[in-house]
Amino acid sequence: MNHKMIRNILGWILLFQACFLLVPLIAAVIYRENTLLSILASILICLAAGLLLARKKPQNTTIYAKEGFVIVSLSWVLLSLTGALPFWFTREIPSFVDALFETVSGFTTTGASILPEVETMSKSLLLWRSFTHWVGGMGVLVFIMAFIPLSGGQNLHIMRAESPGPSVSKLVPRIRTTAIILYTIYLVLTLVECVLLLFGDTTVFEALNISFSTAGTGGFGLRNDSMASFSPYTQIVVTVFMLLFSVNFSCFYLILIGRLKDAFNCEFRTFLIIVATAITLITVNMRHAFDSLGEALRHVSFTVASLISTTGFSTENFGNWSEFSRLILIFVMFIGACAGSTGGGIKVSRLVILVKGIGKELSTMVHTKQIKKITVDKRPVEHEVVRSVNVYMVSYLLIFAVSMTLVTLFDQMDLVSGFTAVLATFNNVGPGMNLVDAASNYGFLSIPSKLVLTCDMLIGRLELFPVLLLFSPATWKK
Amino acid sequence: MNHKMIRNILGWILLFQACFLLVPLIAAVIYRENTLLSILASILICLAAGLLLARKKPQNTTIYAKEGFVIVSLSWVLLSLTGALPFWFTREIPSFVDALFETVSGFTTTGASILPEVETMSKSLLLWRSFTHWVGGMGVLVFIMAFIPLSGGQNLHIMRAESPGPSVSKLVPRIRTTAIILYTIYLVLTLVECVLLLFGDTTVFEALNISFSTAGTGGFGLRNDSMASFSPYTQIVVTVFMLLFSVNFSCFYLILIGRLKDAFNCEFRTFLIIVATAITLITVNMRHAFDSLGEALRHVSFTVASLISTTGFSTENFGNWSEFSRLILIFVMFIGACAGSTGGGIKVSRLVILVKGIGKELSTMVHTKQIKKITVDKRPVEHEVVRSVNVYMVSYLLIFAVSMTLVTLFDQMDLVSGFTAVLATFNNVGPGMNLVDAASNYGFLSIPSKLVLTCDMLIGRLELFPVLLLFSPATWKK
Repeated sequence: MNHKMIRNILGWILLFQACFLLVPLIAAVIYRENTLLSILASILICLAAGLLLARKKPQNTTIYAKEGFVIVSLSWVLLSLTGALPFWFTREIPSFVDALFETVSGFTTTGASILPEVETMSKSLLLWRSFTHWVGGMGVLVFIMAFIPLSGGQNLHIMRAESPGPSVSKLVPRIRTTAIILYTIYLVLTLVECVLLLFGDTTVFEALNISFSTAGTGGFGLRNDSMASFSPYTQIVVTVFMLLFSVNFSCFYLILIGRLKDAFNCEFRTFLIIVATAITLITVNMRHAFDSLGEALRHVSFTVASLISTTGFSTENFGNWSEFSRLILIFVMFIGACAGSTGGGIKVSRLVILVKGIGKELSTMVHTKQIKKITVDKRPVEHEVVRSVNVYMVSYLLIFAVSMTLVTLFDQMDLVSGFTAVLATFNNVGPGMNLVDAASNYGFLSIPSKLVLTCDMLIGRLELFPVLLLFSPATWKK
Repeated sequence: MNHKMIRNILGWILLFQACFLLVPLIAAVIYRENTLLSILASILICLAAGLLLARKKPQNTTIYAKEGFVIVSLSWVLLSLTGALPFWFTREIPSFVDALFETVSGFTTTGASILPEVETMSKSLLLWRSFTHWVGGMGVLVFIMAFIPLSGGQNLHIMRAESPGPSVSKLVPRIRTTAIILYTIYLVLTLVECVLLLFGDTTVFEALNISFSTAGTGGFGLRNDSMASFSPYTQIVVTVFMLLFSVNFSCFYLILIGRLKDAFNCEFRTFLIIVATAITLITVNMRHAFDSLGEALRHVSFTVASLISTTGFSTENFGNWSEFSRLILIFVMFIGACAGSTGGGIKVSRLVILVKGIGKELSTMVHTKQIKKITVDKRPVEHEVVRSVNVYMVSYLLIFAVSMTLVTLFDQMDLVSGFTAVLATFNNVGPGMNLVDAASNYGFLSIPSKLVLTCDMLIGRLELFPVLLLFSPATWKK
C-alpha cells in the first residue's frame, strides 16, 4: 500500500475542496450574507490541511487497484466532512450529524434532506448545497484527474473505482482526455439547461441552482414544495434534462462524432423502453386523479424521470398515489439510470447483463455441453464482468437488508417507510414513501439511523466495492 | 424430445395419484362421510387417464436433462389438477380455481388456504389436504423413482429437477437406493412425531394430520386458530419437528452411519446460527408482550421454526408484532430451510455460496491475478454451481417483482400485504402479513391474483428453472 501517494492525493482533494467553496463564498459576497466568515473559515481549514498533506510529491507514484479504491473512498469521506463545515459553522444546521447527512446527500447526489424549512436558508448555502450535487455527479476524482497528471494507467484505477456502472470504457486512448471530454459535455449540458430555464419563470439564482441539481441528478430544491410551484414550462425542461443526465455520457460523445448507431446502444434503448413503460402504466392507473390527460402525463413523466434518474425532484407527492403506481415507482427507483451517467441506482446495464444471464443459464441447462458468452451490442461480455455484476447484486441486497434492520430497530417505523428510506438513500434518489415521502424530510430520524443512511448514500454512490474493500482485511495486508 | 417417454411417466404419475387418493377414501369409509363417492370418482378418473397414458412402455426410454425438467413440471401440474377434484366434486370448495389453489398449496407444502372456516370440512378431505403436504414434501417423482426402475443415470435428471437446493448429492451410488433411504428416514421421523403427539392433547386423527403437515413443512391446520389452542407440549413437539424437517436429510443419514463430523456441515451450522439469532432478537424485542420469558420464548421459537422451515403454523398472529420483529421474520421467510429438506425458501446453502462469493470477489479486486474457488466444507464449489445460484437469485427477484406487480394491480392491496402474499406463496410458507396474516386467508383475492399466486407456489417449489424451461423456446427446439 503506497501510503505516501494516498496522503498526497487526499491533500489535493482538500485543495480542490477549498476551490469549490469559492462558489458559495462569491454568492455570500454578492448577496451580502453573514455566512461569509463561516465559509471563509471552512476554506482556510481545507487549505491548511490540504497543503500539509500535499506539500511534497512522493518519489514512488505507482498505485494499484487497491490504492485506487482506498483513495476514492477516503476522498469522498473527506469531502463530506469538510463540506459540512459551512452548514455547521453558520448554525444553519446546528447538529454536525445533520450537516454531514445533508452534505453527503449533496455530494452523492441523493437530495435527501433533514431540513424541514428550506426557504429560510441563506442563498450562499443553498447554492453550496446544489453545487455539491454538481461536483459529486460527475465524480470528484475524475475531475481532479483531468488536472493532476498521473503517469501511465494509474488513473484508470481511480476512474474505475469512482465511475458508475459495471465497466469503464475509455472514449479515447488517454484517460485524461476522456475526463476532459466528459466534463466538457457535462458543463455544456448544464449551461444549456440554465439558459432554457431563464426563458421560463425562474430567476438567475433559481435557474443556476436547479441546473446544478438536475445535472448531478441530485434533487435538492429551493422551495418546500420542490418543483410543484414552478410553471409547467420549467417542469418540462427539468423533465427532459433529468432524462438526458441519466444517459451514459459516452452516448453524447458518440453522437457528436457521428457514430449514431453506436450511441443508440442496448442500454440506451432499454432505458427508453423502461421509461416509456413506467409512464404509460402509471398514467393509465392514475388518470382519474388529474384534471386532464395532459396534466396526468406531465406529472407522471416528471415523477418517473425524477425517480429513474434518481434526482428526486417532485411536482406531486407520489407517496400518495395508488399502491400499484407506488410499486412501479419503487421498481424504477431500484433500476436507476444508465451506467456512465450522473444518476444512481443499480443501473440499466447491470439489469441487462443480469437478465441475459438468465437466458444463457436456461439454454445451458438444456444443451449441457454448450459454452457461450452473453453478448451486449454484439460484443461478448467478459465472464469477470458478469460475475462481478452478480456479486454486486448480492452485496446490494445484503447491505440493503442490514440497513433496513438497523433503521427499523432504531426508529419504530412502518416497513414501507423503512424500506423506502433505505432505497431512496442507498440508490441516491432522495424522497421515499410514507414517513419519508416528498412532503416530509429525514430530520425526525434518530442519530444512529441518520448515520446508517449517510453510510448508505456513500456506499451506494461509490457502488459498494470501494467502501466494502475499505473494511476488507485483504486490502490492508502487505 | 422423447414425447412417448414423457407421456408414459405422466401416466404413472396419475396411477400413483389414484393410490394417494385411497388415503382420504379410507378415511371417508371409517368416518362414514358422504365424500366417499366424490373421492371414488376422482380415483376412477386418475386410473382411467393413467392407464391410457401409461399402457405401453416406449422402446426408447432415454431421457435427457430437458425431458427431466418437462416431466417434473408437468407432473406437478397434473397432480394439482387431479388432486383438486375431490374438493370440487364434494362442493366443499365450490370454485375450481379455489380448489386448485388449495391443492397446489398442499402439494407445494405452502399451506396458504382460501378457506375461511376449516373446522366445518369433512375429516376425509382434511386428511387429504394434510396428506398432499406429505406427498409433496419429499418430492413426488423421487418417490416414484423408487418404484419405476429407469436404466442408468436417467432418473438423476429427474431427481435433480425436483430436489430442493443448488446441487444434488447422491448418498449411495444408486439413485434408487438413495431415494429409498431418504423416504425411509422421512417415514420414520413422521411416525416418531405422530407417536410423541399422542402423548399430548391430540386425538389420533389430529396427530396424523399434524405429523403429515409438519413433515412436509406444509402448514395446513385443523383449527381456525392453527396451533394456538393446542397444549404447550404439543406446540413444543411441533417446534422441534419443524426444525428437524428443515435439515438436509443427508445429515440424518450421515449421523446414522456415524459420520457426525460430515453431518454437522457448514449449511447445518449456518442454519442453527440463523435460527438462534432470530429467536434471540425477536424474544428481546417482544418480551414485553408476553406474561413470562418462558412464554415469549415458546411463541417466538415456534414462529421462527414455523417460518424458516416454511411450514406456516402459528400459535400467535405474528403479523401484529413490532415492525422490527416482522422484518426479521420476513428475512427468515426469505432464507428458508436447508437444501435437501422438505422446506422451501431460497435455502441456507444458496445463501452461504452467495455470501462467500462476495468475499472472493473482494479479494480478486485487490489481488487482480488471483484465481481461487469458493470452498464450502473444505470442498471447492464448482464454478457452474456458483453461477447457477447467482442466476437463481436474479430470476427469483424478477419473478417476485412481476408477481407483486400483477397482484397489486388485480387487487388494490397495500404494499406489505402484496409483498408478503407473494413471499409467503413463492417461498411456500403460507401466511403473510396484514391482509394475508395468520388470522386471515387468501379467499378474498380476485381470481387472477389467485392464479398468479398458484403459479408462484409451483415455481417456488420446483425452484424456478423447471418451470422457466417449460416456457423457453430452447427446450422445444429439435
